[in-house]
Amino acid sequence: MTYNEILKFHGHECPGIAIGYRMATAAVEHSSLTRAEDEELVAIVENDACGVDAVQCITGCTFGKGNLIFRDYGKQVYTIYSRSSGKGVRVVFHGAGIPEGVRENRNEFTRWLLTAPKDSMLTVDTVSIAEPEPAKIRRSVDCAICGESVMDSRIRRLHGKSFCIPCFEKDTLSN
Amino acid sequence: MTYNEILKFHGHECPGIAIGYRMATAAVEHSSLTRAEDEELVAIVENDACGVDAVQCITGCTFGKGNLIFRDYGKQVYTIYSRSSGKGVRVVFHGAGIPEGVRENRNEFTRWLLTAPKDSMLTVDTVSIAEPEPAKIRRSVDCAICGESVMDSRIRRLHGKSFCIPCFEKDTLSN
Repeated sequence: MTYNEILKFHGHECPGIAIGYRMATAAVEHSSLTRAEDEELVAIVENDACGVDAVQCITGCTFGKGNLIFRDYGKQVYTIYSRSSGKGVRVVFHGAGIPEGVRENRNEFTRWLLTAPKDSMLTVDTVSIAEPEPAKIRRSVDCAICGESVMDSRIRRLHGKSFCIPCFEKDTLSN
Repeated sequence: MTYNEILKFHGHECPGIAIGYRMATAAVEHSSLTRAEDEELVAIVENDACGVDAVQCITGCTFGKGNLIFRDYGKQVYTIYSRSSGKGVRVVFHGAGIPEGVRENRNEFTRWLLTAPKDSMLTVDTVSIAEPEPAKIRRSVDCAICGESVMDSRIRRLHGKSFCIPCFEKDTLSN
């Protein structure tokens, strides 16, 4: 997906999406990765900021496919793992070369992020990590209270009945 | 974003993305919602299956913007909240009208999902919910071990020093 397609997906342009664009592009180029149609790649992202939308668009590791793993570390770090090579590529945004004052102007900062040399903002390394588990498909069970369908691994059971989490919590809190 | 653009984002066509497409479209049409450029809408999704990629594309509630809230209930339920109207629209996929045998053929099932009347698979209702908090931007602190930058709310502090979660866990486990 192109930068403009990424902006369309994200909804607006901002420094965060530009950072994600540079990071995800660097990962893909470093390891000659092909966008994941299914779960060929897995992205482990250490924040949930704007840039992750660029990761989704560029790598094909999306929230809905289950190959986007969120580790809530608050770090500008993405690791993209390839199931075919068994290797990961870890990209860190350090921004060491950001000129003084550029951050204060949102548009200027975005332009800088899109055009400055990679080494002035990123480190990219091959890393060994354990292969992440693929996403699972589970059967469904109806909740005994609301009747809505629930994935069996998220069912709460009590007195031989099956409940969805919201109904179970409402019911146990009211008793 | 069109159905074809959604497939490009997701990486492939499957019944899950078709379900998400119908659910998200139904929500947007029911409440005349405009795709969120920023955080004008918030999606609360009760599963992390394929369909959520259609939610991201259609509503503009994306993982990276912080207006996609995941509640891990394993239910085919999305609630889209509009900050301008202060109302939510809750869409449930019940699939009550799915003809027998259709589920067994992936392509046939996808076609059915894309073309069958809305009422044969969904319920759509206006709901009152509390306004979700907007995403926050935090300052960064460097980890005393790896030197990488960390969002201050995710810093672990020990003996007056600041650590990122992975370094902190490695360090405390090794002592």
